[in-house]
Order: sequence, then structure tokens, then C-alpha cells
Amino acid sequence: MKIFVSNALNETEREQLLAEGLDDVFFLHNEFDDNDEPHEEFLESNICFGNVPSSWLPVNPNLEWIQLISVGFGEYLDLNWEKLSQQIRMTNLAGFFAEPVAQSMLAGLLAIYRGIDQLTLLKESVKWVGDPIRENLKTLGNSKVLLFGYGSINQRFSKLIEPFGCQVIPLDDLSTLDELDQILPSADIVISTVPDTSRTRGIFDKTRLQRFKQEAVFMNFGRGSVVDENALIEILMQKRIRGAVIDVTMDEPLPENHGLWTCPNTIITQHSGGGTADEVPRKIEWFGDNLKRFRNGETLQGIVDFGRGY
Amino acid sequence: MKIFVSNALNETEREQLLAEGLDDVFFLHNEFDDNDEPHEEFLESNICFGNVPSSWLPVNPNLEWIQLISVGFGEYLDLNWEKLSQQIRMTNLAGFFAEPVAQSMLAGLLAIYRGIDQLTLLKESVKWVGDPIRENLKTLGNSKVLLFGYGSINQRFSKLIEPFGCQVIPLDDLSTLDELDQILPSADIVISTVPDTSRTRGIFDKTRLQRFKQEAVFMNFGRGSVVDENALIEILMQKRIRGAVIDVTMDEPLPENHGLWTCPNTIITQHSGGGTADEVPRKIEWFGDNLKRFRNGETLQGIVDFGRGY
Repeated sequence: MKIFVSNALNETEREQLLAEGLDDVFFLHNEFDDNDEPHEEFLESNICFGNVPSSWLPVNPNLEWIQLISVGFGEYLDLNWEKLSQQIRMTNLAGFFAEPVAQSMLAGLLAIYRGIDQLTLLKESVKWVGDPIRENLKTLGNSKVLLFGYGSINQRFSKLIEPFGCQVIPLDDLSTLDELDQILPSADIVISTVPDTSRTRGIFDKTRLQRFKQEAVFMNFGRGSVVDENALIEILMQKRIRGAVIDVTMDEPLPENHGLWTCPNTIITQHSGGGTADEVPRKIEWFGDNLKRFRNGETLQGIVDFGRGY
Repeated sequence: MKIFVSNALNETEREQLLAEGLDDVFFLHNEFDDNDEPHEEFLESNICFGNVPSSWLPVNPNLEWIQLISVGFGEYLDLNWEKLSQQIRMTNLAGFFAEPVAQSMLAGLLAIYRGIDQLTLLKESVKWVGDPIRENLKTLGNSKVLLFGYGSINQRFSKLIEPFGCQVIPLDDLSTLDELDQILPSADIVISTVPDTSRTRGIFDKTRLQRFKQEAVFMNFGRGSVVDENALIEILMQKRIRGAVIDVTMDEPLPENHGLWTCPNTIITQHSGGGTADEVPRKIEWFGDNLKRFRNGETLQGIVDFGRGY
């Protein structure tokens, strides 16, 4: 097999990768730009590990399988998959980030409830406040938690908060907008983990955001495009909700003059939710496991379903 | 019954309290200083709700029961309880703070693991770092958690972290120093919730702190006196451990020039761990419940055991 790797790896990670397929030919590269011409070694390869430019895929007649190093695959949606899918299988890292993202979600939520963000700033300015802090703190128990999206992340999150005794209401693909609108006004915590699709885009618009209750915390760990950011900034600035934990935004990096930076009671996690120090080794393990399946003619993990759009 | 109340209450809280004992005489006051003379209304009362100065207790021949509004009762330890306990029962709020403290502990721990403290500071300085943040993040799973003290707080904490799949090792009153010393060097997380007693004072001395592993997070939600703070500051400044979450310190408020303020990867929660916005109403409920028991001659909740020292 010839395996094209487009993935920034250090020396240890390269060795780990090579050990996954001793008899295979590996072409190791860093990541490419969208405008780069298809690399000649890519054109020889039947396997690709990493997100190469979308235009490369239709021009490699040898390509059988591409393992993405992301969950999202929006950049490949415009290809002619009716034709391509007869030749190429695409796998993503579905589920890979569920554990770290769910933990970042709980970290952000508890930080708001237990004042960790405020206490961090007080430490920075060497300011003891003491007892009055307690008056702003809350515990998670008995909260009504609306999970908008019920894939691997929110499923894991609902496991993590089980001991807190919250009322958890998951909404998935089969739920209706009416259900969302009915639950929104009574939810203490609203968490969106949905991807960007024609159905989800802008779903948290001004009208819906203004229906949130005063005590609500909004968290977005899916895609920034599902929220009207200006409307969100407005309710946060006016303290019409308790706070927000925002991992994803329309523009990343978030522009310096963006209003979210200065919103009170808001934690911006800079799309770090899925991150862990051992992320790359874990991705290589995932690829190695799929490579074994590929060799044995078994079903690959994380096959992308273009029909669903995620 | 005549009930002396030494407790800062607002109007609503006063009404809530008075409703707990309609036929009783309530003397409502704010908190007193250690040097204040015993109030004459206190000397008439057979019940006291609130932490009055220690010197007041032996001089009130009518006092049958004092309900503290704290868990700690160190200020009353020096009284002659061999004699006093024949007349006065003392109850504290044992267990009252378990839920909020356990949640603050998890909030602080996840903040360190998921970078919430760093992200809060980045937001304050409007600085996007993005992907490189991920390299410092960690998930909680598989961690070895040493719980030093296994009262209501750490028992609740171990419930809260159950879904994370950590290895939890509780040490209680019956554990030996040898056991502590044996487990310390391999613990990823060390959490002390023990009170100040002759046995615990200074137990996390320089020698023990230096045995922590490089990746260790130290959390203290018991009493500041159990730690050699200078030694802790030293290992934090040298980044010889991953970080710390400190709720309690030797001196509170923490003096402006105290070294902990500037330690990296350290969250100082300013003894807010047990706090919630509804703290006072919950304390009144607790007292009301005990008042009912007192009237009915039932055993009171939270009777202080002076033999154990907590």
C-alpha cells in the first residue's frame, strides 16, 4: 500500500505512525494549502491520512480511502460524491473528540456556576473579595439542561452530569423546532453541539435567544454559524442571561474588535474543546486501527454519510 | 423557648426564620465580635442560632443548645466541655457544604485540565491563541485521585467524578501516614478536605510536597494549616507540579504580598467553595429542622463530637 500523510507530526509521532504499517510505503508531508497542486506522491497513493485540498480527490484514480483528521468534512461536500463514492471511502474522527469536548463543556459550565472565571481575574489583580463571592454562586443540581444535538459529545456530556441530578432533555435530528421552542424558555442550560447544516444555520436567532430565561447559560460547542452572534452579544451585555461558554464562532480566530471578547460572564474557549496533549498520537492510533480494518476488508470506523451532511 | 440569633439576615430571611418557630421568642442580632460582652438577651435564651463569642457560653446558665452556622468550631475547643456538655448541646452544619464544595472542587480541577483559567486571562487581554492551547489540555479519565479526608465533601466529590473513570483512593481517620506516603508519589490529583487538628497540621510539609509527581494537581478545600505554604509556593513557581486549586489559606483574607497570588497554574477560590446564593435560607431551613427535633426531644442533626476534634 502507498499511504500519503498530510499531517504535522513530530519525530516521535512519525515513528509511531510508521510502526502502524511496516510493509507500507509512507509519504510524509505537512498540511497543504487549498491552492496547492496535487502532490505527485498523493497521485500514486491509494490511502490518504489527513485533510488534503478538496480538488485533489477527483484527480487521483488510485485513491481508495481517505482518513480525515477532523470530524467536520464541509470542504469536501461540493464534490460529486455520487460518482466519487464508488471509488473512495472517506472516514472522519466521529466520536474522537467526545470525551475532551464534554469535559470542556462541564469545565466551562461549572466555572460559571462556581465563579472560577471571576476568581481567576481576581487573582490576576491580587484582589481578595471573600464572602461576597458566595452570593453569586450556584450549584448544578436540579437544573434543566437542554441538549441541542445528541451525538457522541452530548451523549457523553449527559453521562458526565448524571451524578448532579439535573433534568436532561436531549433534542436530536428527529426533534422539531416546536419542541425546541417549547423547552427553551424553561431551560437553565442550553447546549448546542450541532454541525453547520442548512437546517441548523442561524437557528439560535434573535427571537429564540430572547426567549432564554434570566438564569440561562448558553454553550456552543458545535459550530458558530448556528447563532446570531450580534443578538447573543446583546443579551450578554445586558445580562439578560447568566452567561455563556463559547467554543466556536463564525470567524476563527475571533477578530480583535469582536463584541464577544468583552461580554461579561462569558468564557471563550477558542475551539480548544476537543484538544488534549496526546491528540496526535491518539489520531495515529485511530488511523492504525482503521488501517488494520482496511487490510482485513472489514468495515472502517467513522464512514462519512454525505446524505446526512455530517 | 427563647432563641438568640446572631446571624446577618435580610428582611426575607428574618421572616423565613420567624416562621420556623411561631410561639417562640426570637432575639435577632447581627454577628458579634470576640471582645463583645455577653448580650443580656443571650443570657436569657435557652437556644442560640449563630456563632457567638466563645466566652459567652459558660456564663449563660439557661443555654441548652447552640446551632452553629459553620462546620468548623475551633473557637469553642478551649472551653471546658467535660463540664459544659452536661448542659449545652452544640450542633454544626456538618454535610451542609458538601454539595457546593464538591462542585467547586470539580470546577477548579476541570479548569486546570481544560485550560479555563488560561482562557479567561486570554479573553481579558483579547488574545486569540487557538490550536496551541490544545497541547496543554488533558482529560480527567484514568487519573489516580488521592482523597485525603473522607467526610461528606470528598464522599460527594467521588460520586461526582464517577463517570470520568478515575482511580479513587480515599484515606480517612483510620489511614496511616505510611499509606499516605506510599500513594502520594503516584497520585495525579491530591485533594485535602481535612480540618485543622493536631494530627493534620502541617501534614503536607516540604518533604511530602516534593514527592508529588510532575503532573500532580494539589487541591486544598479543608484548612490552610495542613500545608506548608512556602513549600507549596516553591514547587508551583518552579512548575514542579501541574497546578493547584486552593480554597483555604493560613491567613484569610490572603495578604496582598502573599506568594500564592503569583503562582502559575493556581486557582485561588477565596474560601468560596461552600457558597451558594441560597446559603442563608438553606441554613435557616437546617435550623428549623433541628428546632423541630429539639421540641420533640429527638436527636439533633450535626452534634459536635469534641473527642474527634471535628
